[in-house]
Amino acid sequence: MSRFFSEKYKNLTPYTPGEQPKDMKYIKLNTNESPFEPHDAVRQAVENAAGSLALYPDPECRELTALLAKQLGVDTEEVLLTNGSDEILNFAFMAFCDKSHPAVFPDITYGFYSVFAQINGVPYSEIPLRDDFTIGINDYFRSGKTVFIANPNAPTGIALTVSEIEEIIINNSESVVVIDEAYVDFGGESCIPLIKKYDNLLVTGTFSKSRSMAGARLGFGIGCKALIQDLNTIKYSTNPYNINRLTLAAGTASLNNNDYTVQNCRTIIENRQFTAEQLQKLGFSLTESSANFVFAKHPKISGKELYLKLKKNGILVRHFDKEKISEYNRITIGTKEQMQALINEIKKILEEQV
Amino acid sequence: MSRFFSEKYKNLTPYTPGEQPKDMKYIKLNTNESPFEPHDAVRQAVENAAGSLALYPDPECRELTALLAKQLGVDTEEVLLTNGSDEILNFAFMAFCDKSHPAVFPDITYGFYSVFAQINGVPYSEIPLRDDFTIGINDYFRSGKTVFIANPNAPTGIALTVSEIEEIIINNSESVVVIDEAYVDFGGESCIPLIKKYDNLLVTGTFSKSRSMAGARLGFGIGCKALIQDLNTIKYSTNPYNINRLTLAAGTASLNNNDYTVQNCRTIIENRQFTAEQLQKLGFSLTESSANFVFAKHPKISGKELYLKLKKNGILVRHFDKEKISEYNRITIGTKEQMQALINEIKKILEEQV
Repeated sequence: MSRFFSEKYKNLTPYTPGEQPKDMKYIKLNTNESPFEPHDAVRQAVENAAGSLALYPDPECRELTALLAKQLGVDTEEVLLTNGSDEILNFAFMAFCDKSHPAVFPDITYGFYSVFAQINGVPYSEIPLRDDFTIGINDYFRSGKTVFIANPNAPTGIALTVSEIEEIIINNSESVVVIDEAYVDFGGESCIPLIKKYDNLLVTGTFSKSRSMAGARLGFGIGCKALIQDLNTIKYSTNPYNINRLTLAAGTASLNNNDYTVQNCRTIIENRQFTAEQLQKLGFSLTESSANFVFAKHPKISGKELYLKLKKNGILVRHFDKEKISEYNRITIGTKEQMQALINEIKKILEEQV
Repeated sequence: MSRFFSEKYKNLTPYTPGEQPKDMKYIKLNTNESPFEPHDAVRQAVENAAGSLALYPDPECRELTALLAKQLGVDTEEVLLTNGSDEILNFAFMAFCDKSHPAVFPDITYGFYSVFAQINGVPYSEIPLRDDFTIGINDYFRSGKTVFIANPNAPTGIALTVSEIEEIIINNSESVVVIDEAYVDFGGESCIPLIKKYDNLLVTGTFSKSRSMAGARLGFGIGCKALIQDLNTIKYSTNPYNINRLTLAAGTASLNNNDYTVQNCRTIIENRQFTAEQLQKLGFSLTESSANFVFAKHPKISGKELYLKLKKNGILVRHFDKEKISEYNRITIGTKEQMQALINEIKKILEEQV
């Protein structure tokens, strides 16, 4: 730390992204990426855009915004595109939280929420998940706080229904409710249609998971016009050209090839089912995941030990040290072959256990 | 504005980027882009990267950081890459300014500085340029504030020497001095070597101008290890994957083809010389620009009127309403043909003036 670093950040612990090791080639099941590359039309669109980099991108991202709005059944003024969904989440913490509007979220959820709160000087509280790792919706009613809920939740994969989300929204009419739908395409229900009914709902999404575009960085927020205006004020006061031309082209091509995304999601869901069954046969307990990962623990081997042994043998999964979930690992769903390799490796590891 | 927008932003006026109109094809001399596309190797590198978008980019940007560090003669720990240089500037306002460390910058400079200050709740003061639009370095000595200076300055294009910058740094040993070198490659002197001597110097740069990559969004900050650590804390608390794979590939290819950039800068400098001479012949007065633009006014036509007439005739330049400079226009230097077209158009406009 330098002697110049602002006092306000001196106790800040930044977010730790999942490992991106370069020491060897892993089967990478640790950061919930897609095992499939985007549709070939995305590659083609990027190649076409690669010849025009000298001019700034359109700061309003008009073409891609219009296309996304149309597909989601909302107006263009109800959409804001960002440099990954971390950016829209940070904007939401900036715009809708402050000392008099604290944040609230589950104790077990996307680990970045507490970091966003801290960097923005926002007080926050964490509500424990119930013992079965589900979210107790009543715990969020009349919170007097800005609510952040990942749906499906991470790292559990457990989803709330749209009507449960709606109850949270109705019972927080004086606060913004942010629903982070990063994983919604793998079996969850999107609550985007509710933005037409409630002025306090912001839904965030990403092209990183179901659309296979983690490497291109594209996220979005959907909410009523006034909420999106506020978020635009933040954007135009921090980084107006936040999305580059290549990513804009890639996003457009992705949306023009939705069948491919739908098919990939179907495959991931099948592979999740396969993986869950195999793990259960091996004695694991799993949460009921609607996401592109499973969350599993085994009675005979600690979460940390399994993670380390898998890593040693070339398979990366994500382990969290947090006490309540330290027995678990979050395992991204890849191809059938990758999941079979994982199962084989786990079998070996379990056989070595006494 | 929504009823939920945080009080702290209610008086915020966002930055207004230069126009990116879509109504017709303009000769675009308003946002200081390069008239040349990047080297063909950049296009090629993007095409190669376009097939690998499913995985997150390296959050540490190791390859590109190492290459940039090597070329600039600094260590990798002295470099931070960002999503355009607006992001590194915002990070600097976050990290090194607060209520007890206000910001100071010239009254005429990059218009975003005051917006960054406002969004971060940082008090700021503006020091008037001298009558000839130069920066009086003594005005910044012992400021007790975080100093932001664009060198060359915008929109004047006037540069300070490295020894003048060094005096500002020495005379602010208890504050960070941020030197924004967005335009340095067109005739300015970089003060990057000074980071080895002073722990209070941060230099920012961009690939948008001399490297023709405004559409790809790539900026950077150079400073001592401790300053860069602080900025990394901000990055990892807001958007760890801030640079996408395509831009990383483009940046690497650009650095591997520096001769091309040097040649383009030489051409821009020649075209600037040509443009300045032609404008002077037509009665304009100009500041002495070391950037890829000129800043010019004419005794017979107001800045606004000239801007509007040029726009009507298909040529976009940048006009600022700020009183002190409202008689001027900032004109980006393009190709010789573009500048000739500008001169021809201005001749016509002046002939029509009574």
